[in-house]
Amino acid sequence: MPKPKKVSESLSIKSEMIMPNDTNTLGNLMGGNLMRMVDVIGAIAAQKHSNRIVVTASIDNVSFTNVVPLGDVVTLEAKVTRSFNTSMEVVVTVYTENIPAGTKKQTNQAFLTFVAVDQSGRPIEIAEAIPETEEEKAFYEAALRRRQLRLILAGRMKPNDATELRALFDLK
Amino acid sequence: MPKPKKVSESLSIKSEMIMPNDTNTLGNLMGGNLMRMVDVIGAIAAQKHSNRIVVTASIDNVSFTNVVPLGDVVTLEAKVTRSFNTSMEVVVTVYTENIPAGTKKQTNQAFLTFVAVDQSGRPIEIAEAIPETEEEKAFYEAALRRRQLRLILAGRMKPNDATELRALFDLK
Amino acid sequence: MPKPKKVSESLSIKSEMIMPNDTNTLGNLMGGNLMRMVDVIGAIAAQKHSNRIVVTASIDNVSFTNVVPLGDVVTLEAKVTRSFNTSMEVVVTVYTENIPAGTKKQTNQAFLTFVAVDQSGRPIEIAEAIPETEEEKAFYEAALRRRQLRLILAGRMKPNDATELRALFDLK
Amino acid sequence: MPKPKKVSESLSIKSEMIMPNDTNTLGNLMGGNLMRMVDVIGAIAAQKHSNRIVVTASIDNVSFTNVVPLGDVVTLEAKVTRSFNTSMEVVVTVYTENIPAGTKKQTNQAFLTFVAVDQSGRPIEIAEAIPETEEEKAFYEAALRRRQLRLILAGRMKPNDATELRALFDLK
Amino acid sequence: MPKPKKVSESLSIKSEMIMPNDTNTLGNLMGGNLMRMVDVIGAIAAQKHSNRIVVTASIDNVSFTNVVPLGDVVTLEAKVTRSFNTSMEVVVTVYTENIPAGTKKQTNQAFLTFVAVDQSGRPIEIAEAIPETEEEKAFYEAALRRRQLRLILAGRMKPNDATELRALFDLK
Amino acid sequence: MPKPKKVSESLSIKSEMIMPNDTNTLGNLMGGNLMRMVDVIGAIAAQKHSNRIVVTASIDNVSFTNVVPLGDVVTLEAKVTRSFNTSMEVVVTVYTENIPAGTKKQTNQAFLTFVAVDQSGRPIEIAEAIPETEEEKAFYEAALRRRQLRLILAGRMKPNDATELRALFDLK
Repeated sequence: MPKPKKVSESLSIKSEMIMPNDTNTLGNLMGGNLMRMVDVIGAIAAQKHSNRIVVTASIDNVSFTNVVPLGDVVTLEAKVTRSFNTSMEVVVTVYTENIPAGTKKQTNQAFLTFVAVDQSGRPIEIAEAIPETEEEKAFYEAALRRRQLRLILAGRMKPNDATELRALFDLK
Repeated sequence: MPKPKKVSESLSIKSEMIMPNDTNTLGNLMGGNLMRMVDVIGAIAAQKHSNRIVVTASIDNVSFTNVVPLGDVVTLEAKVTRSFNTSMEVVVTVYTENIPAGTKKQTNQAFLTFVAVDQSGRPIEIAEAIPETEEEKAFYEAALRRRQLRLILAGRMKPNDATELRALFDLK
Repeated sequence: MPKPKKVSESLSIKSEMIMPNDTNTLGNLMGGNLMRMVDVIGAIAAQKHSNRIVVTASIDNVSFTNVVPLGDVVTLEAKVTRSFNTSMEVVVTVYTENIPAGTKKQTNQAFLTFVAVDQSGRPIEIAEAIPETEEEKAFYEAALRRRQLRLILAGRMKPNDATELRALFDLK
Repeated sequence: MPKPKKVSESLSIKSEMIMPNDTNTLGNLMGGNLMRMVDVIGAIAAQKHSNRIVVTASIDNVSFTNVVPLGDVVTLEAKVTRSFNTSMEVVVTVYTENIPAGTKKQTNQAFLTFVAVDQSGRPIEIAEAIPETEEEKAFYEAALRRRQLRLILAGRMKPNDATELRALFDLK
Repeated sequence: MPKPKKVSESLSIKSEMIMPNDTNTLGNLMGGNLMRMVDVIGAIAAQKHSNRIVVTASIDNVSFTNVVPLGDVVTLEAKVTRSFNTSMEVVVTVYTENIPAGTKKQTNQAFLTFVAVDQSGRPIEIAEAIPETEEEKAFYEAALRRRQLRLILAGRMKPNDATELRALFDLK
Repeated sequence: MPKPKKVSESLSIKSEMIMPNDTNTLGNLMGGNLMRMVDVIGAIAAQKHSNRIVVTASIDNVSFTNVVPLGDVVTLEAKVTRSFNTSMEVVVTVYTENIPAGTKKQTNQAFLTFVAVDQSGRPIEIAEAIPETEEEKAFYEAALRRRQLRLILAGRMKPNDATELRALFDLK
């Protein structure tokens, strides 16, 4: 197994200005276009952690509660939260700025999983991810719970076996 | 409130051939590019149900377990599952075909929520969605549970109040 | 020769929302952008009929009598009308909807021919197309006439040999 | 009516290198992508003749008998052939070069009609087009015949009234 | 005049994975596509410094001595070097990584100037830029020289008046 | 060495209409998007001169002093100015027209260098370029000076050795 790497080594950043073709009829960023940016920067972070080609395995629930108009700048920050044998979870946090107006806020957060593969597409073992800051440790801890939720939603785990997730409901 | 509409009236279909720029380094469709197609066809289905401009409110967990290579044809089928006052859930099912090889399979399924808005972007009441087939009724029933999960994940509902979702864990 | 297939088996559908970059200075869909969508969905229908890779051989006269503004939804429906040894004719009918306004109309109709080829690009024999409905039979009948017109326009048939087309002019 | 202009004043040229996203599964230019380039350069020629905003009214039969591979250079030359009150016909001739190999040939020719409009989209009278060379005069002469064919195909002229077109069939 | 800002406040970062349509016939990033990315991230840095809408005034000489193949990740780092009344110079440094191979190097560096404008496009005064690190100070010092070179190349300054630039040639 | 070719044999032209996605927040062409068009037409001219695949080696200082709004037509004219063993300089002149308004002006001029390469990317000797008109001769003469400036800016020539460039400063 490759030697463990710090979470911070995978940090990847992407600032984009919202262009006409990114927008919907009301002149605001379409959710699906943001998802495409999220996937690309997430893949870069996953590559940095694993030093491998990676493929997207899943994208968790994302909500779009803020309107992002034409001309705003979105900044996406991605880093690995935890690795699992051949896959890893990445968190992408999206900030939106109207720079002339001086406003900036976090508008979205997405968790994705990527699988590291070799040139013929076969999964391959990756390094452990070592969290250092409080926030990184919190993401690391909760990663198991999110993973169980993904497995249940994909029909690959029984709810009763999801011990970590059950804690969410204060159950034994 | 507008008069109720059948789920089937919102059916929207989109077939696409995978082009070079849709693919990653291995020559396969990138997850984020599929999400963009999913968002567009989902928005069309939501428009058909509500007869309104719509904005994406959330996209649920999507998994990408199948590789979709360059030249394959993906067909996305979207329909509303259930409406909630000013928002509605849409299910998008993705089939992938290698037509010369004669293979076709369901590769992805995504649940999205859209909010119907007026020209100034304010939410506006929409029609109820009436399911007819067994599959439509099953989607309709489970929509409440998915909605509770979304609200919990967004930190807008306490797990203990998620009565529908708790059923997933066989709890009272 | 492969065994005959019903026309309906080739039905292919594509709904698209008109985005900013699809439009001209007046904010309406450009004819050439519609042609690109027509070509892609036509190729999918031709693939479905022939189970082969296909290349576009010709696109017949298309007229653009309706304005399609930004935000409208266009739905393209393609199916094979008739096959000719290694080529086939496909009809693509385009409907345009302003869904919030509740309007929908047929805005364009295009006939294309595609040639089925093997991996090295050589033409290859395809199945006969069997029309079933009245409309499919009418398209099937008129396909010969359109084919003669194409051959004359391409300088590959003498007008006097175009027996089917001459019927258009009520001539013997 | 604006004062007549020479056909040569509308000449518009566009050279493009074929990029990955312009191609199909076999690595060759897709017909629909060429049509988009044809429409744009045709519109520029029509603007130059009319000094107006123009919208595409129709694109005549185009055939794709040559394969145009990735990396080839296509050069499109557009000029007005004849004007009709508020509309004009434009011919676009497409040459394809593999420059390193030193090959160049005419691969396509398309006739389009454009309508000149004012800012609110209403048709507006344009200048006559004066042909000078032999080729321009030939295009000018045959423009009436192509126009009649378009009107018949659009169901707006009876074949018996198409006096110019009937000449194609050596009829009185 | 707005109150001075540190150079570091304008730092803007953008990581991109090279996709098929970014590449030329040899499968490597085209220079012009890199310039587009450079312009966008440069504009974001200039917006951050000026808190204004900005327009590109010039892009200095850029060389492309390294090949950047499909699938590599380019990271662009932009920051303001110095401001001049209503305009500012931005430096964009481009690093290219083949992450699976573990290679990373600086491949390009570009200097751009942007003008800050109000909503009607009129130039407007901006804050001074305060360099802090050794590298920032070096960029700040040399900015005058590059500015004189730009003015000479644009024919807006006589070489004899370019006192800063003459130093480059060890002249009095 | 291949036999010399006239400068005029490399002339390459490209007219484009400015589309929504080419523009910035103010609705005007972004500098970086123009650079992409400049690079493509420059590469076509360099291919025509060398009959080789070419890669961009550098783009000289370009200024953007004119606003080019949505719907305007830009025409780029490229030709080789001079060749140097395996590389050549190309000048691209950009004209912008608002055709309905009847205005046309030169808005930009860029000098690029391209290297001719074989299929494995190795530089390969090219033909000399023979200037004929006064303008071509002036470009040819000044090409040496621009080349020295490029080499100095790239740190590959000492200012004191730049004999041609020193003439710009009236020095011996």
